[in-house]
Amino acid sequence: MFTELDSHFDDVQNWRRYLHQYPELSFQEEKTAAYIAEKLTSFGLEVKTNIGGNGLVGILKGKERGKTIALRADFDALPINEENSFPYKSQNPNVMHACGHDGHTAALLGTAQTLSKFRENIKGTILFIFQHAEEKPPGGAKSMIEENVLDEVDYIFGAHLASDIPLGKAAVGSGYKMAAVDRFEIIVEGKGGHGGRPHHSIDALVIGSEIVDSLQKIVSRRIDPLKAAVVTIGVFHAGNAFNIIPDTARIEGTVRTFDEKVRDQVEEEIYSIVNGITSGFHATYKIDYLRGYPALFNHKKETEIVQKLLSDVFTDEAIIDFEPSMAAEDFAYYLKEKPGTYFRMGSQNENENTHYPHHHPKFDIDEKALLNIEKAFVKIVSHYLF
Amino acid sequence: MFTELDSHFDDVQNWRRYLHQYPELSFQEEKTAAYIAEKLTSFGLEVKTNIGGNGLVGILKGKERGKTIALRADFDALPINEENSFPYKSQNPNVMHACGHDGHTAALLGTAQTLSKFRENIKGTILFIFQHAEEKPPGGAKSMIEENVLDEVDYIFGAHLASDIPLGKAAVGSGYKMAAVDRFEIIVEGKGGHGGRPHHSIDALVIGSEIVDSLQKIVSRRIDPLKAAVVTIGVFHAGNAFNIIPDTARIEGTVRTFDEKVRDQVEEEIYSIVNGITSGFHATYKIDYLRGYPALFNHKKETEIVQKLLSDVFTDEAIIDFEPSMAAEDFAYYLKEKPGTYFRMGSQNENENTHYPHHHPKFDIDEKALLNIEKAFVKIVSHYLF
Amino acid sequence: MFTELDSHFDDVQNWRRYLHQYPELSFQEEKTAAYIAEKLTSFGLEVKTNIGGNGLVGILKGKERGKTIALRADFDALPINEENSFPYKSQNPNVMHACGHDGHTAALLGTAQTLSKFRENIKGTILFIFQHAEEKPPGGAKSMIEENVLDEVDYIFGAHLASDIPLGKAAVGSGYKMAAVDRFEIIVEGKGGHGGRPHHSIDALVIGSEIVDSLQKIVSRRIDPLKAAVVTIGVFHAGNAFNIIPDTARIEGTVRTFDEKVRDQVEEEIYSIVNGITSGFHATYKIDYLRGYPALFNHKKETEIVQKLLSDVFTDEAIIDFEPSMAAEDFAYYLKEKPGTYFRMGSQNENENTHYPHHHPKFDIDEKALLNIEKAFVKIVSHYLF
Amino acid sequence: MFTELDSHFDDVQNWRRYLHQYPELSFQEEKTAAYIAEKLTSFGLEVKTNIGGNGLVGILKGKERGKTIALRADFDALPINEENSFPYKSQNPNVMHACGHDGHTAALLGTAQTLSKFRENIKGTILFIFQHAEEKPPGGAKSMIEENVLDEVDYIFGAHLASDIPLGKAAVGSGYKMAAVDRFEIIVEGKGGHGGRPHHSIDALVIGSEIVDSLQKIVSRRIDPLKAAVVTIGVFHAGNAFNIIPDTARIEGTVRTFDEKVRDQVEEEIYSIVNGITSGFHATYKIDYLRGYPALFNHKKETEIVQKLLSDVFTDEAIIDFEPSMAAEDFAYYLKEKPGTYFRMGSQNENENTHYPHHHPKFDIDEKALLNIEKAFVKIVSHYLF
Repeated sequence: MFTELDSHFDDVQNWRRYLHQYPELSFQEEKTAAYIAEKLTSFGLEVKTNIGGNGLVGILKGKERGKTIALRADFDALPINEENSFPYKSQNPNVMHACGHDGHTAALLGTAQTLSKFRENIKGTILFIFQHAEEKPPGGAKSMIEENVLDEVDYIFGAHLASDIPLGKAAVGSGYKMAAVDRFEIIVEGKGGHGGRPHHSIDALVIGSEIVDSLQKIVSRRIDPLKAAVVTIGVFHAGNAFNIIPDTARIEGTVRTFDEKVRDQVEEEIYSIVNGITSGFHATYKIDYLRGYPALFNHKKETEIVQKLLSDVFTDEAIIDFEPSMAAEDFAYYLKEKPGTYFRMGSQNENENTHYPHHHPKFDIDEKALLNIEKAFVKIVSHYLF
Repeated sequence: MFTELDSHFDDVQNWRRYLHQYPELSFQEEKTAAYIAEKLTSFGLEVKTNIGGNGLVGILKGKERGKTIALRADFDALPINEENSFPYKSQNPNVMHACGHDGHTAALLGTAQTLSKFRENIKGTILFIFQHAEEKPPGGAKSMIEENVLDEVDYIFGAHLASDIPLGKAAVGSGYKMAAVDRFEIIVEGKGGHGGRPHHSIDALVIGSEIVDSLQKIVSRRIDPLKAAVVTIGVFHAGNAFNIIPDTARIEGTVRTFDEKVRDQVEEEIYSIVNGITSGFHATYKIDYLRGYPALFNHKKETEIVQKLLSDVFTDEAIIDFEPSMAAEDFAYYLKEKPGTYFRMGSQNENENTHYPHHHPKFDIDEKALLNIEKAFVKIVSHYLF
Repeated sequence: MFTELDSHFDDVQNWRRYLHQYPELSFQEEKTAAYIAEKLTSFGLEVKTNIGGNGLVGILKGKERGKTIALRADFDALPINEENSFPYKSQNPNVMHACGHDGHTAALLGTAQTLSKFRENIKGTILFIFQHAEEKPPGGAKSMIEENVLDEVDYIFGAHLASDIPLGKAAVGSGYKMAAVDRFEIIVEGKGGHGGRPHHSIDALVIGSEIVDSLQKIVSRRIDPLKAAVVTIGVFHAGNAFNIIPDTARIEGTVRTFDEKVRDQVEEEIYSIVNGITSGFHATYKIDYLRGYPALFNHKKETEIVQKLLSDVFTDEAIIDFEPSMAAEDFAYYLKEKPGTYFRMGSQNENENTHYPHHHPKFDIDEKALLNIEKAFVKIVSHYLF
Repeated sequence: MFTELDSHFDDVQNWRRYLHQYPELSFQEEKTAAYIAEKLTSFGLEVKTNIGGNGLVGILKGKERGKTIALRADFDALPINEENSFPYKSQNPNVMHACGHDGHTAALLGTAQTLSKFRENIKGTILFIFQHAEEKPPGGAKSMIEENVLDEVDYIFGAHLASDIPLGKAAVGSGYKMAAVDRFEIIVEGKGGHGGRPHHSIDALVIGSEIVDSLQKIVSRRIDPLKAAVVTIGVFHAGNAFNIIPDTARIEGTVRTFDEKVRDQVEEEIYSIVNGITSGFHATYKIDYLRGYPALFNHKKETEIVQKLLSDVFTDEAIIDFEPSMAAEDFAYYLKEKPGTYFRMGSQNENENTHYPHHHPKFDIDEKALLNIEKAFVKIVSHYLF
């Protein structure tokens, strides 16, 4: 089948470049979804659209019954103005496929195209999940699952391009690999007043600063040092005039954890600290704590299988360890429901732009990485369904 | 002369109400200045306009030579939308005489009107200083002085309406009465980054919070507890996204002091603390420290004279102590150059609105307080020049 | 009478030097009290001993009835090892009259000696109060008052030697002059544990540090900047081993204020802050807050009288303003009960040791200051009773 | 050989109980060392004593030449007063084998006793390392290595009793398992003074508190959240009197890390923060930073071998993962020099005392754990040398 993949690489490249030119923001990917649906239909797959939003699936039923394997690609873009100059750069100002989702989609389309020609050999079903809105919580995975997209699935696999890994290599590993990501907003409500008369005010700005300071102690003192946790404050806004004590301070931040108990504890500690400090200084508060994507957990057995399969495809040396990261990925939702694994596929070559981090306005990939994703997917499917 | 003042009170009231209807913001008081100039001219005074901006003076030379006494009124309004409903309320949206400067101006015009009729009795000169831009640093006083308005002056006096003092009473006292007011802006320059990777960033928000916290120790530990000082942070702005570590934090605040050495020390301590903490966390900083109005110091001898004179006009019991305040007033500049005193004239009556603090959108006065200011000024002038 | 004082100065000097050699600590001044009693008896005064402890009074009744004037001296010494080398230096190791109470006592004895010879001229009664334990809260004044020592008193006066004022000058002034002084102890109760497992502990040391930090905000944010207040932490003790998280932190400090409402507020804020922060971090606390001496308030009328009288004795220029201080003095208790004033008498000369601050192991005085205290006291008594 | 071990278990038990009765503190273990030397000699081994202190080795040379395997036991006790009541409890007040080193020593003696009978079968050399002073940095391992104890060694293995693991189970695992442990002392040098005059002092206590607070940010902000680090302050001592501002604050703490770069970074950040904050508040400082034991790293290959061997002895289920810990162990020094692994042997049974944590005054073990250590060691030796 790899020969088949090779022979159609031009298609994959074209699709990817087309998608790259017409990126759409999370939750606004109507045209992209329609484009994917059209391709899947042309491969003869059964297509279901508008799943939990712009999500869609292509279904490839093998000749014989068997397990159901899901493969997933995400297809939303980012609010970034592209700074690349190649001919197929983004035509939409301030929208760019700067994370590689265009590649994920093209590679999964290519995988579908090829596998659709081997229906005779397949014992079971392949579900090609094309997911919208990975970049923006609450994300597309959650709502697609809520619409039962995983109901028949036995195993699920996903891949992400990686600008920090050379072309030809892939990172695979089991356990927690990407963090659960939560968002919180704290409003400290004091009492504003004249800058020269602090005793008539309740200084929300100073109270807010102490809260920022105290929140550091969650990670430094309250959490097991052997378990990862991050509490980052991204926003502190208080006051508009240098000589007026502000009545409120707004603090927004993110919590990153792997372990659910640690996640619970960090949330509880935030409430406890904010409650304690505001009460100590006669202020009140509101907290809005929103749970985002859960931690991504790669299942041991399926990961070991994929590790072995990819070693066969790319050599032993090509398969490196998947270093955990405090970034997030809503593929985590699928892995909470079904066994499977998520791996990273190297897309870096000698060209400088392919070294930029994801989300950079000059982000670029070696497109041969798409072929490598296709080969990995085809190999996995073969293992389970051939 | 008090009879003369009484008989012209209608004029003063009308002028005040006219000014109240057409308030102008600091540094934009062209029409107000023209209105004043016209009145002064109509009283037969020599008028000099555009002094240090929109400032102007009326000069009343007595028959005989003698000392020069300056009396000062300020005439700018505030960026407040008036919430009163009387017929002469502000016609200019978001501009309001909410501090009583309309009254100061009308009362000083009335004083000039009456005194202009007693030229024969005057041994010396009266300088009626109408000052623009008291509400907004750098203020009008400084620039008027820089244009030599005080050159010939021997003594200077000023009055402010006071919504916290009942009509008929006045607050007089010597020493430091209103604070020096400075403005500072601190920019903490760190390094922004991904909220899940704090070790790749230098977290300007957290560093800024520690600075806010540490600045509290200037007043609590570094300054003589027997000397007044306030360090208020009015603005803390850092970050725009909950999950991105901001690269900068902007902190704006005000310093209020009486004693010049304390003022110097607070400024030095701010530099020292900001330098120490940013260096400790590998960040850099910029500080912009602007000295505003100096502390207002009422001279002992002239204050005692005014105290005695006002006791004569209003009874002993009517003259109360001038409680110091951490608010500021650019009359302070005049008193740094020339002996004199600044006093507060009660404008509160049984009407609820006259109890609102200055700068309140419902601020109002008992207009008879203007007559009291006139009487005080006339009495002072009589003492020195009759 | 000043001639009489002059002629007996040798006695006063000898008494002072005797007392200096045999200092006794607060609440242990039995021998000193007996010595004073013996002298007072030898002057023919009625003596009452053991008032509220080691306190005692000598009563001098004039020929005619009239007002009762109290004069007070304190006679306890300090736990300091004297470093002076004059012949009459302390014979008691680690005990020293390093504050001048030996001088106060000798001067009041001299005053009693001389006045006892003018009984014929006195219309009224003089109460010579010799008070123990001024240096150590709860002090002697409180218990002497509780035993009714002030019951018959109309006015009370006291003086303190001053090493920062040149001989021949005295500081007199009305209003709050010395601070109320309170003591507090905060115990933070967390949970100790292994230094490598902070999540199993509740880190009392870190919580205690945040409390120290937050207490700074009482003075910087909660108290009127125009009113003096100090919150000083003198003791922070937590932990005994570098690698064990301590279960408790002990914080001791002092609060200094003038205004009773400010005093109340500071106490309340301490409770509020400690409660807030400990609760925020799951710890508990105990606070022991002890009110010490109140603020010393010199009454306006009596102070003006003494100011005038001392100007007569020492010239106008010799009488300087009594600068307020955040130190404490239990003479404050008398002035809460009866009108009067407390003043400071210069004891500094060209000799370096007389410049050392009080409580210094090399503290010394110009003994002629004792004669000045006597003259002041005699002059005051004459004013009221002659 | 296991039969041989079983038959001699009485000896091992008796040795352990003897050692338990006569514990000796770190660096004072003369009698214990002599006791061990006597036993080793009685087994016919070559014994070298006083290696790097009280350390000693027994050398068992096999009939044929081959690899050299080192096995290590530690034999110092702790400054704890035993609260057990069994007949062989500690006879030395305030000294107790509360960590199980008595058991380690007895088990290694038993291993030597049995292996000495199988000299004929051994191809290579066994080095029985009996190490003093594991509990107290700088520890005994470092000095024994400095005296070349590892020169001929090919592999080294060690075991620790574990009161949190049931008898019959063992924890084995590769990678970083125990933390590097450093000790630091910070002296903040300010300027002491009167509690009522903070502006005349430089308040070392308040500065010290801010340092404690800021040090929290090393772990929360400066270190990769995916790498373990602990900064614990165990001691904060400042001041002796509630009303005197202390001139110095003493802060002692420990740093725990795995990664050497993280270790370096934490040390650098401590210097940077202390330097920044003290300079910001005009204080100075001294830091004494002592590197203690390095992180313990179990080598992958040898660990896998031991994992397999122990599974054979105790069943697959009995071998659990070695959870990393932020505690320290100077066996780490050996593993920096030679490949090997350190494992934990369960000593917990239904008896409550065997559940107490190590270093508890009621710590106890199931002595059959010693037999399990012996079996593990014999199995390992067999693998490499038989």
